[in-house]
This record gives sequence, C-alpha cells and structure tokens, in this order.
Amino acid sequence: MNFENYFPLWNDLNIAQKKIISDNLITRDVKKGTIIHNGNLDCTGLLLVKSGQLRTYILSDEGREITLYRLFDMDICLLSASCIIRSIQFEVTIEAEKDTDLWIIPAEIYKDIMKESAPVANYTNELMATRFSDVMWLIEQIMWKSLDKRVASFLLEETSIEGTNELKITHETIANHLGSHREVITRMLRYFQGEGLVKLSRGKITILDSKRLETLQKS
Amino acid sequence: MNFENYFPLWNDLNIAQKKIISDNLITRDVKKGTIIHNGNLDCTGLLLVKSGQLRTYILSDEGREITLYRLFDMDICLLSASCIIRSIQFEVTIEAEKDTDLWIIPAEIYKDIMKESAPVANYTNELMATRFSDVMWLIEQIMWKSLDKRVASFLLEETSIEGTNELKITHETIANHLGSHREVITRMLRYFQGEGLVKLSRGKITILDSKRLETLQKS
Repeated sequence: MNFENYFPLWNDLNIAQKKIISDNLITRDVKKGTIIHNGNLDCTGLLLVKSGQLRTYILSDEGREITLYRLFDMDICLLSASCIIRSIQFEVTIEAEKDTDLWIIPAEIYKDIMKESAPVANYTNELMATRFSDVMWLIEQIMWKSLDKRVASFLLEETSIEGTNELKITHETIANHLGSHREVITRMLRYFQGEGLVKLSRGKITILDSKRLETLQKS
Repeated sequence: MNFENYFPLWNDLNIAQKKIISDNLITRDVKKGTIIHNGNLDCTGLLLVKSGQLRTYILSDEGREITLYRLFDMDICLLSASCIIRSIQFEVTIEAEKDTDLWIIPAEIYKDIMKESAPVANYTNELMATRFSDVMWLIEQIMWKSLDKRVASFLLEETSIEGTNELKITHETIANHLGSHREVITRMLRYFQGEGLVKLSRGKITILDSKRLETLQKS
C-alpha cells in the first residue's frame, strides 16, 4: 500500500496539490518509546500511521500524565500539526507505543492547501471533531465514573488492542494512562485479584474474567 | 450594530452566500434559564450572541452537571450546530444564563456554505479549536488542580463576569458548574469563610479578599 491509498482526501486534491504533497512527503520509522511531538516545541506536521501505535497524552507540571487517545494503523494525527490552527491553545505529547512507520505531511505544506481547499479544510474539521469527541468521552469518564470502572475499561481496551489476556504492563504505566498514582492502581488491581478478576505477577497482569470486568465497567 | 458587523466572516462571503444567510437569518430573544440546545435532540444552527450570556455544559445520567465554557457578547456557538460536523459525537446542553439576544444561522444553510467555502470551513476549524482548548483547560483543572483552587478560580471568574464582589449564586449552582456536590461546595465555602476570604449569607457570597483567592488559585 502506498500513500495515495491511505490518505482519504487524495482524490479531492488537484494535480498541483498532489504534486506538492508527493514532493514533500516524509517517511519516518520510529522505535517504541520515541517522543514524536512535544507540546508547542514541535510542529511536525500531519502524521499518517502506516503501521504501529501512537499515544497522545498531557503532562502536568509535576510530571503526571493522562492519556487522551491512541492512534492505530491508518489513523491520522492532527495535533502534531497544531501550529496550523491558531486557536489550538493546549499542548500534548505524542509518543510511539510500538515501533511505528509514519508518513508526515509537513505542517506548512498542509496549511497552505487547507487555506485554499474547502474539502481539505472540512476534512480537518472532521479530524479535529473526532479528537474533541475522544476528549469529551474522557471528561465523562473522569467526572462520572469511579476509578474501579476506569481501570476495568482500561484493562479490557488493552486486551482488545493487544489481542491477548496476558498484559505486559506495569502499574506505573496504567497510572500514567489514567492520570492516577501507582499506589492507587496497585491497590485497585489487588482488589481485582481478590475478586478473581485478574492475576498479578511480575510485570504482567492476566485477565481471568473479562465478562465480570465488562459488567463492572458498565455498572 | 447589525449582523454584518458581528459576523467576522461576512467579507469573505460571495454575494450569493450573503443573500442566502440574510434571507434565512433568525433573530431570537431568550429569557434567562431557557435551554437553547439540548444534546442531539436539537440542531439549531450557529448562534451569534448579540448580548447576554450562554453556558455550555454536560450532564451525567444521574443529572450531575459540569460547565464546559461560557459565551458572551459577540461570541459564536458552534456546538449548537453539531449536526453539521459528523464526527462530533458528544452531547452538550446550552442554556441562557442571562436574558440573551441571538442571531441564528440555520444549520443546513451554514453547512452548505461550509462545504463549498474554504474560508468558512477554516473559520469553523478555528471556532472548534477554541472550544476544544477550553475543554482541555478544564481537563487540566480537574486532573491536576484540587477543588479549593477550582472554587477560588470560579469565584474570581464570576466577580470578573458580573463586575461585582457580591455574587448572587447558590452553592448548588457552583456545584453544577464544577461537577461537584452541593455539600462539598458548602464545606469548602465555609472553610473559605473561616479563612476570611469570603462572607456567606442567604443566596449571596461576598468576596472579601480577592488577592488571597488569586494566590490560592495559583498555588
């Protein structure tokens, strides 16, 4: 598969726009753990995930994290090009959660096309609305759902992403995803273990009863 | 002042677009307390606040509220036209916090123009990014700031909006703004009163020491 097949807007571009994107397109392979975008310091451009997994999160002054959303194969990342929209006045960090292959449309190139093309501007609207919706979902989780349900949701999401019931993940990492503290997550996971929902071992959490985790998540 | 002076995009519209907006523009005066937009049930259109004050909030299944942002004179409300962008997958409620005069561009009219006009689509991007930024600020408040700081911020914001140190507001209303419970807010306000920051009386909160509230907010 090449870029044309991945980029949903390709057929809405005129010949000049196709050429300028093709001529300036960057391919980049990043290793797991690489920080791809770091707040307003970078304005990398629009990222197209060919394969891999990215995590977008915010960071407090004290170094606490909370995951906003993840991006998977064929997803497009707009906030890595936040400089193209003046009114985006917040900073996110984007890191590769797995080895990831990317295409990058440089910010200036995309911005120029977006200014003149209604389809590109409208597509950008849809992209932003999708991320905005992810964040609104997160607010509802934080405000109305208690932590036991959020941990249950997170474990179920991870088993779905990884395709396995044996999650290689630390309590610290879960805390960073959920904006919580390691000690709090450990206590919750031990409670889950006591209830027979999971089994904890060094660096690994095994899901024993996903049915009951689902019930807990919804309750 | 008429609509042309309020609508920042007016000069970017062509004659046909100006005509269709003018022909379909609705003016509406709503009383304080009116629900203008109610989740996905309505798709009113783009609201332009001529004068007054609107509050956008989300509602939990149990009826708890949290304020996302407010709109004042000359502000434009996009989420009251959320149906024009398919990917907006969350529901907000918008109510008039004061008697408010509005212009409404019906959703279908705006959507048609946005589809064909790059300036209008780009302007919509900026509007959405502004609200997205408001919501990101809120997440940071919720996640990293403790409730005492959030109540201090809220009181300072209200004195600034109302232009007075005597706020006619109930503890229940503050709880709804902040996604908290009345009892929790009452306890916090009594603590503030004990510290000499505010004076509480029936249906009224008087700010006694805004300097120290500012210090608390930032700490």
